[in-house]
Amino acid sequence: MTNLHINKLAIVGVGLIGGSLARALRNVGVVQSITGIGRNEAQLVTAKRLGVIDDYSTDIAVGVNNADMIVLAVPMGAMQSMMQALKPVLTESMCVTDVGSAKGSVLRSMQTVFGHHLHNFIPGHPIAGTENSGVEASYAELFRGRRVILTPHEQTTPTMLDKVEQMWRACGAEVTQMSVEHHDEVLAATSHLPHMLAYALVDTLARMDERQEIFEYAAGGFRDFTRIASSNPEMWHDICVANQDALLKLLQVFRQDLDRLIHAIQEGDSRYLKETFSRAKQARDNFCGD
Amino acid sequence: MTNLHINKLAIVGVGLIGGSLARALRNVGVVQSITGIGRNEAQLVTAKRLGVIDDYSTDIAVGVNNADMIVLAVPMGAMQSMMQALKPVLTESMCVTDVGSAKGSVLRSMQTVFGHHLHNFIPGHPIAGTENSGVEASYAELFRGRRVILTPHEQTTPTMLDKVEQMWRACGAEVTQMSVEHHDEVLAATSHLPHMLAYALVDTLARMDERQEIFEYAAGGFRDFTRIASSNPEMWHDICVANQDALLKLLQVFRQDLDRLIHAIQEGDSRYLKETFSRAKQARDNFCGD
Repeated sequence: MTNLHINKLAIVGVGLIGGSLARALRNVGVVQSITGIGRNEAQLVTAKRLGVIDDYSTDIAVGVNNADMIVLAVPMGAMQSMMQALKPVLTESMCVTDVGSAKGSVLRSMQTVFGHHLHNFIPGHPIAGTENSGVEASYAELFRGRRVILTPHEQTTPTMLDKVEQMWRACGAEVTQMSVEHHDEVLAATSHLPHMLAYALVDTLARMDERQEIFEYAAGGFRDFTRIASSNPEMWHDICVANQDALLKLLQVFRQDLDRLIHAIQEGDSRYLKETFSRAKQARDNFCGD
Repeated sequence: MTNLHINKLAIVGVGLIGGSLARALRNVGVVQSITGIGRNEAQLVTAKRLGVIDDYSTDIAVGVNNADMIVLAVPMGAMQSMMQALKPVLTESMCVTDVGSAKGSVLRSMQTVFGHHLHNFIPGHPIAGTENSGVEASYAELFRGRRVILTPHEQTTPTMLDKVEQMWRACGAEVTQMSVEHHDEVLAATSHLPHMLAYALVDTLARMDERQEIFEYAAGGFRDFTRIASSNPEMWHDICVANQDALLKLLQVFRQDLDRLIHAIQEGDSRYLKETFSRAKQARDNFCGD
């Protein structure tokens, strides 16, 4: 049970995440009305037609008027300009959160735009998504059983934090808290680095002369391995920029490990190969199960 | 319909592939009797108990006696010693094939052991498998709709080639032919390189201090991406050794592409990042569908 009641929810960016959040909250009946905000009117029309939002505005200042909860679900690259647009109309009673995949850059943008960290803006990140995007791909169950990481800062008001927590719990998510730095490291490891490798691999193969044949002979393992390379390129460009530091640090570690592996294959170093593969298999079997 | 009739099928190595082949051929009724051969008697007992084989021998010379079809389904590392054991008892009328993931090394072993390429030994490779291994994981449908690549050589007798082709077609597979070199390049690209990246990534993360937390926050994309890192380490060690040349060539290309990507992230080269991700997404969407 939840005491949460949102009178007016304003979702800036009604795509896969924003749309799924709207659907989930409507399903559990904790929200009175939902306003979609975005630049692309056609998408907002679609969102309304699908019953995801009640009304919409392409003007953020108009759209957030009287909202008690504002969710910024725009690509990382649009986050700062959205804050800029929000600045003149934001009031103390409005609770604000975002869904960005990197949190350091959100805090930096907040500092740049507002000159300090807002007590009523709690950065958040639902660890959910598919390789599809857009409101057509949204569904109410997207966050069920998934983690949502909130990264409150020194200025965070506990009641505001509580409200955002309750919102995600109402969607069936498991909410945890983490420092901004830790969040960005963990996500670089579990999500950003794997995406870089999948993109790089598919691109390497796609530029080979025999690409037609190569993809033709790709089996199930390849399909699973490369699925994340079908993710939205714009979104991933933004994530690379937003989480540059943590991602680069990890890429350097991985690159050294890969060089060591290449060396072992070159030298026929059976012991190193078997140890590495065994350690990896054990880790994955332990942590991931299937 | 098939005219194929195998009087006695000898499967050397009754694991996932050998076991599934036995089950599939028995299901379609083209085989009279199936003998399992291996070093591990307990596994052969299990295979017999499961009805996968009719009888077994731990002595290859005994086991292949009177067989008209011999399938070497042992790990790549055991291939040459199996040929050595087969040599004194092999007759002209026996049709031999293997299921190894690299074909150049099979031909080299054949040359080493027999002094020439056998007219009745047709190297083959079913592009099928799961991250599981062992006869318990075998099932008759494993090859249905999958590709099997045969790599006949200059000495191959057409009737022998035809027999192996029919055998795989009887399992529901789509059989194609390729040169040994081409096979090894294509497989390095679609299977061996991805496995190296998955193993290397999981190992990199498994050796980090925050590994517990990292794996805890891994979402669906990570699970799919790393599934192949749960594959059999011994088997993949053998493949690295067997397909060393083609794999190393590709690893070098990939490593350069990765360095270029790292550089682009460092420099914030938006154009390069968007182009790379878009090209990869388009290639995967085109070739893989889902």
